[in-house]
Amino acid sequence: MHVVDLIRKKRDGGVLTDAEISFLVTGAAANTIPEYQLSAWLMAVVWRGLNAAELQSLTTRMRDSGAVLNFSGLPAPKVDKHSTGGVGDKTSFLVAPIVAAAGLYVPMISGRALGHTGGTLDKLESIPGYRTNLQEEELLSVLTTCGLSIVGQTEWLVPADRTLYSLRDRTGTVESPFLICASIMSKKLAAGLDALVLDVKRGSGAFLKQESEANHLAELMVSTGNAAGTKTAALITNMNQPLGRMSGNAAEIVESVELLRNQRHPLTEDVRRLSLELAGWMLYLGGKVPTPEDGLQLAEDLLHSGLPLAKLRCMMAAQGGDLDWFESPQWLHRPPRQYQVKSPSAGFLSVVDCDQVGWAVQRSGAGRNVPGEAVSAHAGVETHKKIGDHVAAGETLFTVFVEQEARAQAAIEILSRCFTLSAEPPLPQPLIYKVVA
Amino acid sequence: MHVVDLIRKKRDGGVLTDAEISFLVTGAAANTIPEYQLSAWLMAVVWRGLNAAELQSLTTRMRDSGAVLNFSGLPAPKVDKHSTGGVGDKTSFLVAPIVAAAGLYVPMISGRALGHTGGTLDKLESIPGYRTNLQEEELLSVLTTCGLSIVGQTEWLVPADRTLYSLRDRTGTVESPFLICASIMSKKLAAGLDALVLDVKRGSGAFLKQESEANHLAELMVSTGNAAGTKTAALITNMNQPLGRMSGNAAEIVESVELLRNQRHPLTEDVRRLSLELAGWMLYLGGKVPTPEDGLQLAEDLLHSGLPLAKLRCMMAAQGGDLDWFESPQWLHRPPRQYQVKSPSAGFLSVVDCDQVGWAVQRSGAGRNVPGEAVSAHAGVETHKKIGDHVAAGETLFTVFVEQEARAQAAIEILSRCFTLSAEPPLPQPLIYKVVA
Repeated sequence: MHVVDLIRKKRDGGVLTDAEISFLVTGAAANTIPEYQLSAWLMAVVWRGLNAAELQSLTTRMRDSGAVLNFSGLPAPKVDKHSTGGVGDKTSFLVAPIVAAAGLYVPMISGRALGHTGGTLDKLESIPGYRTNLQEEELLSVLTTCGLSIVGQTEWLVPADRTLYSLRDRTGTVESPFLICASIMSKKLAAGLDALVLDVKRGSGAFLKQESEANHLAELMVSTGNAAGTKTAALITNMNQPLGRMSGNAAEIVESVELLRNQRHPLTEDVRRLSLELAGWMLYLGGKVPTPEDGLQLAEDLLHSGLPLAKLRCMMAAQGGDLDWFESPQWLHRPPRQYQVKSPSAGFLSVVDCDQVGWAVQRSGAGRNVPGEAVSAHAGVETHKKIGDHVAAGETLFTVFVEQEARAQAAIEILSRCFTLSAEPPLPQPLIYKVVA
Repeated sequence: MHVVDLIRKKRDGGVLTDAEISFLVTGAAANTIPEYQLSAWLMAVVWRGLNAAELQSLTTRMRDSGAVLNFSGLPAPKVDKHSTGGVGDKTSFLVAPIVAAAGLYVPMISGRALGHTGGTLDKLESIPGYRTNLQEEELLSVLTTCGLSIVGQTEWLVPADRTLYSLRDRTGTVESPFLICASIMSKKLAAGLDALVLDVKRGSGAFLKQESEANHLAELMVSTGNAAGTKTAALITNMNQPLGRMSGNAAEIVESVELLRNQRHPLTEDVRRLSLELAGWMLYLGGKVPTPEDGLQLAEDLLHSGLPLAKLRCMMAAQGGDLDWFESPQWLHRPPRQYQVKSPSAGFLSVVDCDQVGWAVQRSGAGRNVPGEAVSAHAGVETHKKIGDHVAAGETLFTVFVEQEARAQAAIEILSRCFTLSAEPPLPQPLIYKVVA
C-alpha cells in the first residue's frame, strides 16, 4: 500500500477501505508516514469528506492506536460528558459530581485552553496541588473511591490523534466536521465509556457559528458513538454569551463550588440549568432513570442533597488538591488587579461577540498564545449583564482580572468593542437548541 | 504573514495576493516553510484552483526564485518548444536544428524520462560523451556557435519548482492544471525566451487523456506565457500511439538523424510532419515569417537543405558527443537482444493503449523506476504498425530491445495486451487537434 495512492483516491472523491484507513492511522501513530503526506491527505478529507463507514473506521482505528481503558470491573456504568468548547463553561465541575452522586462512574479525560475557549485542566490546576496527570491505575483508584476523576490525556491514549491534531493545527485542516468528530470520539471511546453526552456549542462563542454546522457535527458524533457501542446523545446549546458570571481558571472553580453549595444568582442560572440538563441526559443514557426528564429531576434532587459537593471534594483530595479554601471558596480566586469596563450609553444588551470575550479572557492571562505556556490562575473576566438585560450609561459590563498589569489593556480594549446595545429588548434565545439522540 | 492563514484562505476558496504567493514561493525555494504546510497548500490549490492573477503570480514568482537566463546579447530571437510528454516523441531533435538553421536561437532546457514518457536528456546521453550539465556561460557559447543547445535543468534555475515538484510527486498533487502550468512555464520563462511553442499531448499516451483537460492546460499556459512577455502558442496533438517507429533512447536519436538526412519511411511520417508544424510555429512566433503556414514551408525547405543536420552535429560536437557514428547512425543503437510481439489474429489496428507502450519502453530499461536510476541506451520498443493499418495473423506488431535479458518479459507481456484489432478500419484521427494562440 502506498500513501500517495490513498491521498490520490481521497483527492478524487473515492472511498477508502478500513484497511487503507488503518494503514494511515497506524503510520500516523508510529510517525512512519511523513507529515507532508498526512497533511495532503487531511486537506483532501477537508475537501471530499468521509462517508459513514470511513468515519467509523477512522474513529475506531484512532481509538485503537494506543491503549484503551478498561474499567469493566467497576460495578456501574461509566458515563462522560464532552463539550466542543466555550467561554465560561464550567458544567464539567457540576455534572461529573452530580452523576457520580447517583452511583455512576465519570472518568473524564479533559483538555486545555485552546484559542478563545477555556480548558478544564487549566481551571482545575488553579487548585494548589491538584494533579491531572494520573496513570490508569490511579485513575481507577480515584474512580472507585469517589465515582469521578477529571484528568488529562496521557501519552498512551490515542497517539494517532496527537500526531494528526498537531498537524491539523498547522495546516488549516482543523475545520472539518469529520476530522473533528474522529478526534473527539476516538479519545472518548478510548476511555471505555458506556454512555456519552455531547455538549455541541453553537453561536458567536463556539467554533461552530452556524446551525447547520453544529447539527452536522452532532449527528456525526452521535452516529459514530452509537455505532461503536457507546450510547451517545448530543445537546446543541447556546454559546452566544459566556456561561455564568466568571470566565477564567480559579474564578470558574469558585463559581462551580458555589453552585454545588446551592448558592444561586441570576447570572449563574444558565450554567446551573445547562449542567442539570446535561447531567439528566447522562443519568438517562447511563440507565439510572427511564427518561431524560426523570434524569433532570434526579439531577436537581441530587444537587439539593449536597452529595455532589462531597464527591468533588473527594476527587480533589484524592488527586492532591488543597482543600483549605473549600469553606470560603472566594479565597481561591485572588486577582491582584481588577479593571472595570463600563457601558458608554444606555440600552438593552442585544449581541455579545462571545468569541471576543473568550479572547479577552485569553489575553488577561487565563489562556495561552502557544502550546505549553503557563496560564494565570487568577486572571479572567466577570460578566455583569446577560443578553436582554437593561444597561444604564456608566454601568459596569465586565470586570477584567489580571495578575500582571501589562495584561489588562488588550483585554479591556477587546471587551469595550464586544457588545451591542439596542433601544428595544432582543428576542429571548433558547439555552438548548436541539437534542440529537 | 502566517503560512497557515494562506492555506486556510485558499482552502476556503479565497484569492491570494501577489505578496502572499511570493511569500510561499520564497519559503519553498529557501526551504523555510515546512513541507507539511506546502503540501496542504498544494492540495488546497488542487481543490480550489487559481485565478488568472494568482497563476501569473505563482509562475513569475517561481521563475524569479532563482537565476533567470539573459541571452539578450544574441543577435536574433530565442525560441523554444516544450512537450507535455509522450511516447516516441523525438520532435526536439528535429525542431531545434531546423529553427537554428533559420538563424534563430534555441536554448532548450529539457527533462528526463518520467513514468511512461521518455526524456530528451536520457536520449541525448545515449551518445557517448555528450554532456547535458552545462553552466550558463557554456550554454551561451554553444548557442552562439551552433544556434541551439539542449541541456538539463541546473540548480540555479527555478529552485522553488524543485521543492514543489518533488513534494507534488509524493502527495498526489501533480494533477492540477494550474500547478502543471506554473511548473512548466516558470522554467521556460526562466530561460529568457522571446517565443515558445507548446506541444500539449492528448490521448492514451498523454498525461492528459481528455480533450477538455488538454484544452484547459493549453489555454492556461498560452495566457501565462503571453502575459509574461513571451509569445506563446500551443498545438494540441495526438498521442494515441507512439510517434514514429522507435521509442527508447539511442533508437530515437538514430531515427531523428535519419529524418534530418531526409530518409523518409511511412512509419515516421507522423513525427516528421509534427516536427515541421511545430518548427513552423516557432519560426512564425520568432518573427522569421509572417504566418504559421509560411513557417511550415520554410521548415520544410530547411529540412531539405540538410543544414539542420549540420546544426545538430555542431551542438553534439560542442557538448562533447562522439560523432563517429554520424555517417552510419544505426551503429549508435546496438541492442544485444530483440524479441518480437506478433499479432494472434488478423484485423485492423484500431486502438493502442499508448501509455502501456510507454510502460513497456520503461520496463525494457529505457526509463527508470526511481529518480536517479541509470537507463539503458539501447533498450526500447519498435512499432511496426500504425492505427488503421491491416495486420495479418502472426505478423509482428512490436519489437522489444533490451540490454539485459531479464528486462524483456515484462515489456513483452505489456505489449501483448496493449492493442485492439477490429474487422473494419477505424476512422482516421487528426495529428493536430487544435491550435491555441
